[in-house]
Amino acid sequence: MDYDRFFHDALETLHRERRYRVFVTLERDAARFPHAVWHSPDGPRDVVMWCTNDYLGMGRHPDVIEAMAATARRMGVGAGGTRNIAGTSEPIVALECALADLHGKESALVFTSGYVSNETGIATIARLLPDCLILSDADNHNSMIEGVRRSGAEKKIFRHNDLEHLEDLLRSAGRERPKLIVFESVYSMDGDVSPIHAICDLADRYGAMTYIDEVHAVGLYGERGAGYAEEVGALDRLDVIEATLAKGFGCVGGYIASRRAVIDAVRSNAPGFIFTTAMPPAVAAAALASVTYLKGGIEERRRHRTQVGRTKASLAAAGIPVKPGPTHIVPVMVGDPELAKAASDLLLAEHGIYVQPINYPTVPRGTERLRVTPTPFHDDGLIEALTEALIAVWRKLDLPFATRAAAA
Amino acid sequence: MDYDRFFHDALETLHRERRYRVFVTLERDAARFPHAVWHSPDGPRDVVMWCTNDYLGMGRHPDVIEAMAATARRMGVGAGGTRNIAGTSEPIVALECALADLHGKESALVFTSGYVSNETGIATIARLLPDCLILSDADNHNSMIEGVRRSGAEKKIFRHNDLEHLEDLLRSAGRERPKLIVFESVYSMDGDVSPIHAICDLADRYGAMTYIDEVHAVGLYGERGAGYAEEVGALDRLDVIEATLAKGFGCVGGYIASRRAVIDAVRSNAPGFIFTTAMPPAVAAAALASVTYLKGGIEERRRHRTQVGRTKASLAAAGIPVKPGPTHIVPVMVGDPELAKAASDLLLAEHGIYVQPINYPTVPRGTERLRVTPTPFHDDGLIEALTEALIAVWRKLDLPFATRAAAA
Ligand SMILES: Cc1ncc(COP(=O)(O)O)c(C=O)c1O
Ligand SMILES: Cc1ncc(COP(=O)(O)O)c(C=O)c1O
Repeated sequence: MDYDRFFHDALETLHRERRYRVFVTLERDAARFPHAVWHSPDGPRDVVMWCTNDYLGMGRHPDVIEAMAATARRMGVGAGGTRNIAGTSEPIVALECALADLHGKESALVFTSGYVSNETGIATIARLLPDCLILSDADNHNSMIEGVRRSGAEKKIFRHNDLEHLEDLLRSAGRERPKLIVFESVYSMDGDVSPIHAICDLADRYGAMTYIDEVHAVGLYGERGAGYAEEVGALDRLDVIEATLAKGFGCVGGYIASRRAVIDAVRSNAPGFIFTTAMPPAVAAAALASVTYLKGGIEERRRHRTQVGRTKASLAAAGIPVKPGPTHIVPVMVGDPELAKAASDLLLAEHGIYVQPINYPTVPRGTERLRVTPTPFHDDGLIEALTEALIAVWRKLDLPFATRAAAA
Repeated sequence: MDYDRFFHDALETLHRERRYRVFVTLERDAARFPHAVWHSPDGPRDVVMWCTNDYLGMGRHPDVIEAMAATARRMGVGAGGTRNIAGTSEPIVALECALADLHGKESALVFTSGYVSNETGIATIARLLPDCLILSDADNHNSMIEGVRRSGAEKKIFRHNDLEHLEDLLRSAGRERPKLIVFESVYSMDGDVSPIHAICDLADRYGAMTYIDEVHAVGLYGERGAGYAEEVGALDRLDVIEATLAKGFGCVGGYIASRRAVIDAVRSNAPGFIFTTAMPPAVAAAALASVTYLKGGIEERRRHRTQVGRTKASLAAAGIPVKPGPTHIVPVMVGDPELAKAASDLLLAEHGIYVQPINYPTVPRGTERLRVTPTPFHDDGLIEALTEALIAVWRKLDLPFATRAAAA
């Protein structure tokens, strides 16, 4: 049988729908963040990254780098086993304590990634609740969707951030049935936020458990960088907080924080936690350094907000169509997959600016965009260069400017 | 609603069945491998690890450590994005090339872990094959079982290593239906191996695709450390080879290697690959250093075999019941969960020897064991100390000695 035919067919579909992705190879430069070297077809070229999820540049912070390097030298690279079999190191235990403390919870558990923490975390929690009904926001990330699926529990999707719809579903499930509400704080593609308090009110009223994904908020929001729940004073109202160590904290890995019994039950029952090699001590040490540093990172968060605000203002003044929102994510709307790709290609080739296009299935068709993420290291000069480059690209591709500038 | 009750109940069950696990916290010491510091209730104590899956001690190899430290300094810690969005670094691309070369395949793809590579790899491959039937060995690892489940494809389990059973299932599926045979090379709990050539013969005869897990074999077997398939000269007969970077290679992460179309289709369609932060450049560089080193690691593999052979011989001579097998895994059989735990506790507390008990569900009930894994760094003195300690523990717990020693 010619099996390759099936794989070629699948790739053919992606090419036909203009969804085939070519990865751009970058060499980050810790000393010159957000600059990187792009391995272009014509050789190496300096570029500025405008779409990194290392939102605060913590991946290049000397404390974080030195924690990784020193721990690797002291303890070696890999963990050498699962958490149960030789893989529980002192740095991973310290990291879990720091994360529990960050979120004001009794306990925390580290996973290979944020993806895995959602997938195996949600699935395991829902499985431990008899006849659980999961209420899941329509815009939830793929890792949460897979976790919901894997739980085998019944699920109802509520319209994105729609409290009435959520309340209808909660009401019709009845007070006695175990219910798990699964949602995000900051939605990463539109940069909008969920009404955390209102969702917790509903959870209280109908006796539901809450599970929030703070992946795009930890490190960035709240007095100590615990995320959006801390920002709005809702930390203690949430049952389970999930997040990543790979974005605001600049490392890799994921975790959940909750009450002791919840964490211990997940630790003891989640296959995606039990049957895999533990996080390397050097990675745990780096993440611990980042979390610890950002607990006091008020200046980083302030500077981040300032530069995000300036980027939004600069693009808006130039008539570049930015989707408005309260967070650090700056969606520049294009609305067509080929034009989004063309804009991204031009930015890279002609302006040395790296912003990937975001196309279906990551966002709905017709809402294709460039997702711009300013860090505290994107200074005013870089913001101006980005603005100029976008204007040039918008002209070249004959993309519509927003009304405000059209009037200017 | 009192949700914690459900989590307490789940934990209660584990306690009742004596399956509740307490993790032992270890500080590895790169300079003194396989020694580590155990954070015991009475303070730090020196112990010898006898159950690490860092089978060759590559996690402490200076080349590997320096690759991690130097790359972290140069490029920072985290990847900063998914593979598609800012996360494809030069070291990860180089690592994928080295892995493809290692297995003699056109292409390779790196994942967060071996667990994730199996789970999303198997699921994605099977989904791309219309009406696929998966034939899965009964002893396959949890990550493969989850991958099979997630594919949604029909599955048939064949009895462990049972070629007749596999052939029956292949025959009744018919030649025209796409079929995927999923199996391991070295089974990690018994240390037995699969009949790779015979399985490939059946795959040829009935037109099936083959997917092999070499997690416990890469680095250790074959001329260049490509695994058991290389050892028996079957590399080019297998369609997909999956393995980890976290055991023989001493780092963290997983991968698959195959033909270009297969890898490209998985790259483009696997949710567990697409929607997660890429491997940090510093981890990729460390893994690359390890893979590259072990391509020439004939001396490490020879020394490993020698010390494994000596360990088996020493334990057998002392009447410690070792399950025989052709690999580096030395299962010391106990057959009872509480006695296995008690033996492990005594080894740690009284002899400074760390070997975790392996209980249900990792192995079937009644086959509880200590899983001993000698590395090239377990010298003859350590082997003798292990043997003496096991004899003392066996006497203390009144465990049965094997006949050979009983007769001695
Ligand atoms: C909302 C959300 N949750 C979880 C994840 C997964 O986190 P990680 O990259 O650590 O796997 C992502 C993105 O990567 C995300 O956007
Ligand atoms: C056979 C097998 N496959 C896959 C895995 C998972 O690999 P990793 O630890 O890299 O997640 C393991 C154990 O961890 C295993 O024993």
